[in-house]
Amino acid sequence: MVNYPNMKKNTTYINKVTETKHYTAHRGMSLEEDISLSNEYYLHHDIAVIYKKPTPVQIVKVDYPKREAAKIVEAYYKIPSTTDYNGIYKGRYIDFEAKETKVQSFPFQNISEHQIKHLERIIKHNGIAFVIIAFTSLNEVYLIDASYIIHDYYHGTRKSMTYEKIKTYGHIIPMGYIPRLDYLKVVEQVYFKEDK
Amino acid sequence: MVNYPNMKKNTTYINKVTETKHYTAHRGMSLEEDISLSNEYYLHHDIAVIYKKPTPVQIVKVDYPKREAAKIVEAYYKIPSTTDYNGIYKGRYIDFEAKETKVQSFPFQNISEHQIKHLERIIKHNGIAFVIIAFTSLNEVYLIDASYIIHDYYHGTRKSMTYEKIKTYGHIIPMGYIPRLDYLKVVEQVYFKEDK
Repeated sequence: MVNYPNMKKNTTYINKVTETKHYTAHRGMSLEEDISLSNEYYLHHDIAVIYKKPTPVQIVKVDYPKREAAKIVEAYYKIPSTTDYNGIYKGRYIDFEAKETKVQSFPFQNISEHQIKHLERIIKHNGIAFVIIAFTSLNEVYLIDASYIIHDYYHGTRKSMTYEKIKTYGHIIPMGYIPRLDYLKVVEQVYFKEDK
Repeated sequence: MVNYPNMKKNTTYINKVTETKHYTAHRGMSLEEDISLSNEYYLHHDIAVIYKKPTPVQIVKVDYPKREAAKIVEAYYKIPSTTDYNGIYKGRYIDFEAKETKVQSFPFQNISEHQIKHLERIIKHNGIAFVIIAFTSLNEVYLIDASYIIHDYYHGTRKSMTYEKIKTYGHIIPMGYIPRLDYLKVVEQVYFKEDK
C-alpha cells in the first residue's frame, strides 16, 4: 500500500490489497481477483472473451493539471443496472454476477432487483446466465443457474437461499493454480452437454 | 448545468450536455445519447439487452463524509481494453464501438489497437462485431462489420478509412424518432439474413 502523506481519518485509500477481505481460498486472493485471473487465462488461451465491467461512477468534476493526466476530483459510485461480468464463450452470450458470503446461505440482499431483472432478460434472450457464489467459511465456490436464484428471489419464503439448496441445484467450481477458478468447465458441463 | 461556487479555470464540470459537441443529427444529441436511447427502447420492448460499459476509472482516494454518500476525490481515466457496447440480440453476442468523425473519413487514431484486437477476438468466437461511425458533417451514420476496419487497420495503406469505402462496405443506419438510431434493423439485415 502506498504511504500517502497527511492521511485523514475519514479517508480510505483503495487498492487491490485492501479490497481483499473475506475470500481465503488462495492466500488472500479475492473472488474477484480469482475470476479476473481466470478470465485472463481464458482470453490468452483463446477459450473465451469475458470481462468484468468497470465500476459505474458518476463523474462530476475533473481537473486538467498542466503536463499531467486529467484528474477526477469529484465522483460518486452509481448503482449497477446490470451484472459485473459478461462476454462470449463458444458463440454463446455469457452473463453472471459473483458474490462472496461469510454465512452458510446466500442472502438476497447481496443482489439487487435490477440485477435479478437483468439476469431474467438474459435467459429470455437465450443467453447463459448464472451466479457464482463463494462460501468463504467453507472455501467452496458454486456456479448456479440464474433461474434458481430468480425463482427464489420472487417466490421463496426466505430472504436467502440455503447452502444446501445451492449445493443441490448448483455445481461446485474446481479450484486450481491455472486457471484459479475454472468456471467455464462447469459452464461446459451445464450448458453445452447436448453438444457432445 | 449546476452552478458550482468557486469554479476554477483549470476545472471542467462534466455533464451530459457539455459532452455533446459534434453530432448534430437530433437537436444537439450526441451519438452516445442516441445509441443509449435506442438501447433503452430495445430493452423496454424486449428486443435486445445491450448496454454501454461504464467508463473505466482507477479510483485512488475515497472520502466517506458522515451521513453522505462516499465521495471519490482522486481518480484517473483508464484506457479501455474493450469496446464501449456489448449485449445480446436473438441469442447472439453483439459487440461494437461507436465513433463520431468530423472529417469525411474514419481516422484510425479514433480506435485503439486494444479495441481492434478485442473485435478480432469477438469475430473469432462467433460473435457479431461492428463499428458505428457517425459523419457529423454529413449527418449520416453507418454500421460497418468490424472485419473491414480490422483489415484496413493492419493492411491498409492509409491511416484512415475513406467515407466512400465505409459507404460501400457499410450500411446506413435509419434515423427516426423512436428509436433514434435503429441499428438493430441493420444488424438484422446484415447478420440474420439467412434465417429468413
